[in-house]
Amino acid sequence: MDAPLRPTFSRRAAALTSSAIREILKITERPEIISFAGGLPSPATFPVEALQAACARIFADNPHAALQYGPSEGYGPLREWIGKRHGVAPGRVLLTTGSQQALDLIGKVMIDAGSPVLVETPTYLGALQAFSLFEPNFVSVPSDESGLQPEALTPELTAGARFLYALPNFQNPTGRRLPLARRQALVERARAQNLLLVEDDPYGELSYGGDQLPSLLSMNPDGVIYLGSFSKILAPGLRLGYIIAPEDILFKLVQAKQAADLHTPSFTQRLAWEAVHTGLLDQHIPAIRALYGAQCQTMLDALAAHMPEGVTWTRPEGGMFIWVTLPEGMDSLTILEAAIARNVAYVPGAPFYANNPCTNTFRLAFVTVPPEQIQRGVAILGEVVQTALAARKPAAAMA
Amino acid sequence: MDAPLRPTFSRRAAALTSSAIREILKITERPEIISFAGGLPSPATFPVEALQAACARIFADNPHAALQYGPSEGYGPLREWIGKRHGVAPGRVLLTTGSQQALDLIGKVMIDAGSPVLVETPTYLGALQAFSLFEPNFVSVPSDESGLQPEALTPELTAGARFLYALPNFQNPTGRRLPLARRQALVERARAQNLLLVEDDPYGELSYGGDQLPSLLSMNPDGVIYLGSFSKILAPGLRLGYIIAPEDILFKLVQAKQAADLHTPSFTQRLAWEAVHTGLLDQHIPAIRALYGAQCQTMLDALAAHMPEGVTWTRPEGGMFIWVTLPEGMDSLTILEAAIARNVAYVPGAPFYANNPCTNTFRLAFVTVPPEQIQRGVAILGEVVQTALAARKPAAAMA
Repeated sequence: MDAPLRPTFSRRAAALTSSAIREILKITERPEIISFAGGLPSPATFPVEALQAACARIFADNPHAALQYGPSEGYGPLREWIGKRHGVAPGRVLLTTGSQQALDLIGKVMIDAGSPVLVETPTYLGALQAFSLFEPNFVSVPSDESGLQPEALTPELTAGARFLYALPNFQNPTGRRLPLARRQALVERARAQNLLLVEDDPYGELSYGGDQLPSLLSMNPDGVIYLGSFSKILAPGLRLGYIIAPEDILFKLVQAKQAADLHTPSFTQRLAWEAVHTGLLDQHIPAIRALYGAQCQTMLDALAAHMPEGVTWTRPEGGMFIWVTLPEGMDSLTILEAAIARNVAYVPGAPFYANNPCTNTFRLAFVTVPPEQIQRGVAILGEVVQTALAARKPAAAMA
Repeated sequence: MDAPLRPTFSRRAAALTSSAIREILKITERPEIISFAGGLPSPATFPVEALQAACARIFADNPHAALQYGPSEGYGPLREWIGKRHGVAPGRVLLTTGSQQALDLIGKVMIDAGSPVLVETPTYLGALQAFSLFEPNFVSVPSDESGLQPEALTPELTAGARFLYALPNFQNPTGRRLPLARRQALVERARAQNLLLVEDDPYGELSYGGDQLPSLLSMNPDGVIYLGSFSKILAPGLRLGYIIAPEDILFKLVQAKQAADLHTPSFTQRLAWEAVHTGLLDQHIPAIRALYGAQCQTMLDALAAHMPEGVTWTRPEGGMFIWVTLPEGMDSLTILEAAIARNVAYVPGAPFYANNPCTNTFRLAFVTVPPEQIQRGVAILGEVVQTALAARKPAAAMA
């Protein structure tokens, strides 16, 4: 009798799309697939025993506080620990429900419809998704194999920009790291042009050699919003990240946080604090670095052995990803179909671009796949690319 | 040398305000204060032993899965448990980081700047905060001591409304429950007028007598977004809530959820599931009801004993709040200052109104305060109100 309800969605809801990665992950859950698609850390790196002991301490000491509502800013001792680690006052720290939430909160308080927002080329897909809801005008900053080019940040390019979003360390998706001189030049230009920097740093601790470059935050604490995460150094299933920001910006972010979810779970915050405050990460992070460095080298060797001429890729010094560029004119989405038919998966590069996608790129994640499968998977990818290249030549000749 | 950074905030950031409750809670953290202000459940109701056992099972069975990323929709077995409890398919369930996040997600996908959104008079402050970010035009629906008046929902009033937000059970802040006949009339009118209903139900299980009225969801599953919460029946520090919605709406909400925080922590979801799936709540909820019912009665008795004539209040059959109305022309904010000077606190009523606040109202929470302090605190409030009333008469005479 009744007509079904016809809801009216918001204009921004129309901009919502499922992440390409998420859709591909669904396909690649089949056990026979060698998947280089996911961005999951290796579960071998989760400090299970330390977290179990931390849980036991929570229940022994003060379980009611860990189960009760808490302050929107986050658990005091954890804010202090984070502040100390980054050399900032704890009052500048806000705990978030994963680093993804930080992107949402920043989008909320900084972006109006049409606001220019500067991003790297390419950049992190999840940030494009989060910011898109607030309908910015993305401006892609010219970037090369070392990352974004500070000299491209002319007053014309940055005019009216609400912020520049950057991942200086082992960027998702390329794995590249911004060199020291570029960091200095970036911070100087931003300062001169009243440009707020958003520094997203989930991978900074994952330098295989252990060397770390200074954060943008450390170079100009009053001009940078810094995003940190426990997902890659402790466990992503806790969904724990944090923001460090100048007081006036943090104040607005805390208000937005309160409206978003009141606060990040008391239980997971205390769990993390119990685990890290006694120095767990000092022994734990080197073990992650060693594992990921070896996995990366295995994949680099396999690429060198199996990829046909004309294919290039990044050589990361940290993090979880390698970025591959096929010869001009090839489409990584078409090749993905052929790869999946042979049970190998990756993420095509196009969704990582805010503008003018390079469709001949793709991302490889190497941290969860065993070495022998990395070798086998890359060998198959090499054959698939070789076949596509061979098929392409006659077509070109016919044209 | 450098000028400090001058960030440009979004237009919506200007609408952000700290919750009045939050600011008052800061004052009332002093131990000498008898606080009826907070909305915290009693920690005496947290099933600590059951949660500790649940934690032990997680670490014994599959800790790596509880520490890894998970699906945006939530943990499968928990979705099934919730679906079964509400008689809906698990595919209609989305886990959220507290019920507050559900309000944010609904605001995101349903509200454009200027969209009419219907709310009760008064309504939940946290919902006004969450929706306000998306700049709706709030329309207050006439309500009385039994809740909103369905006959007020004329086509003129509901024209273009994106949804009607309602708390039918033991509403925050009034404690009132919408009678069955009004529920039926509300659902019928909404159906006839293509009006989406958002049913927020954190207190539905807390009926002191144990009797429950049918949810709006059960009356029209295809026309209602239902919000549930574990905060009042398990523990708020887990930040676990959920949405049940028609498929097309849930699909958009899941996309917004992914951009907001990828997913609710795997760990807390599994913790809740381990605790509830063996039937914990069947014994646990009656104990909460008995405690809260007794606390409520203590406060009702104290109000009857100590409040001067002309003051009225609600008589809740469940939940955590009593709503007090002072004689016309009195201001509960002014009286709060006098009350705090005598170490008693409550939340003034004005922030709970979307339009035309009744400044002579306030909210009393009774679940965390011991009975003898309820008696003492209400006696003091009675004196403070009496003094204000007495001071008022000469002023009126002088005018």
